Amino acid sequence: MSASFSVTAVEGLPELREGDDLAALVTALTRLEDGDVLVVAQKAISKVEGRVVALAGIEASAQAVEIAGGEADPRRIQLILDESAELVRVRPPLVIARTRHGFVCGSAGVDASNTPGGDTVVLLPVDPDASAARLREALRERTGAEVGVIVTDSFGRPWRAGTTDVAIGAAGVEVIREHIGERDPTGYELHATRLALADEIAGAAQLVFGKLDRVPVAVVRGLDVRGDGRAADLVIPAETDLFR
Amino acid sequence: MSASFSVTAVEGLPELREGDDLAALVTALTRLEDGDVLVVAQKAISKVEGRVVALAGIEASAQAVEIAGGEADPRRIQLILDESAELVRVRPPLVIARTRHGFVCGSAGVDASNTPGGDTVVLLPVDPDASAARLREALRERTGAEVGVIVTDSFGRPWRAGTTDVAIGAAGVEVIREHIGERDPTGYELHATRLALADEIAGAAQLVFGKLDRVPVAVVRGLDVRGDGRAADLVIPAETDLFR
Repeated sequence: MSASFSVTAVEGLPELREGDDLAALVTALTRLEDGDVLVVAQKAISKVEGRVVALAGIEASAQAVEIAGGEADPRRIQLILDESAELVRVRPPLVIARTRHGFVCGSAGVDASNTPGGDTVVLLPVDPDASAARLREALRERTGAEVGVIVTDSFGRPWRAGTTDVAIGAAGVEVIREHIGERDPTGYELHATRLALADEIAGAAQLVFGKLDRVPVAVVRGLDVRGDGRAADLVIPAETDLFR
Repeated sequence: MSASFSVTAVEGLPELREGDDLAALVTALTRLEDGDVLVVAQKAISKVEGRVVALAGIEASAQAVEIAGGEADPRRIQLILDESAELVRVRPPLVIARTRHGFVCGSAGVDASNTPGGDTVVLLPVDPDASAARLREALRERTGAEVGVIVTDSFGRPWRAGTTDVAIGAAGVEVIREHIGERDPTGYELHATRLALADEIAGAAQLVFGKLDRVPVAVVRGLDVRGDGRAADLVIPAETDLFR
């Protein structure tokens, strides 16, 4: 692996709106090089893709009203239910769900914070791997550089406090590094060592995002992680998930 | 947060043995500055602290023999049981356990890979937060620099493929950043946003550790994360863990 890499926030982006050309905005602020990984917080992608929904137009079902229990907006709960393939845990008004993409996270990724106005929420991108691939292509067209793209979101996790950013979309990146069958320097065979590189890169980028200062994009430079993985590869099938 | 930071492997360390002075070895190879975070893979700490155990002296219980089921060394399973406060999942010969520290991980952190000779295993440090604090103090004595220390291990996790490195020990570092009650730029109050900074730093360092080339130490420079958190803060009490 690389001996050194850097993570740098891309500062100066405007408040993003549907239809904004993220590749144009980013390349106006930073110079990308071959092998860089551009890491983008989910909310930036969702906003330019129009995944911001006004609660005014939403009708809450009886189930949503019950889960909201007077402590949350039932229309927001309805959107969480709509985004969910499976409810993993419900402790009203909190919901942990498996999204249609297969990700298990709080509120099915539906997020109200950082949204302009209090009456809208931001949904996850419809297909974050495709979002990453489109952005990668747009960056290549503008700069000629072969850049990887990772789309991240902040997920809680069982057994450990706090959230870390993980990859929910990826393009042009080695998402998982397999060490199956390799031998370490003492001759011991490394069985089934699988490193979730894209999640570690996502977490590294979060360290410069900042939650309050609107920096949803960072450039990771110096890692040798070119590849063709997708964040969907990080979704583990239930039958092989010993931790579940 | 910081606009940029770097992660650099400390290359050139010898194979570590019990009693080695890790602070002396590291400061001979790199120049530390105030505010740096030295990230050290658990195995390096365990080796210098003598947490390497020869299987020859271990007697396996009936339970260990049963879990081993002819597919694993029952003496290794016995050490896993000895390190466990609770068995979380057992699918012979695989065990996921809560360690005495409260960490939930495969094999209770007992690891055979990268061990010189095939007949020894490496256990987690007895008190990784204390290990981090001792190393931080030794580095300060040698260099005068106020350096944070994070001890990491590679953990699997439910619902997602692969491992990421997380913090199992910390000293002089902001382990969790709380955003409770703060307001984002649109006025929305950020309820209970807790970022597991130390886990994200651990994962970032893993990206330069490499699995095969014996680089268990990295320097993270440029992050503003001085604090007094402990990795024990990352262990979430069962009753507040909605994900469990």
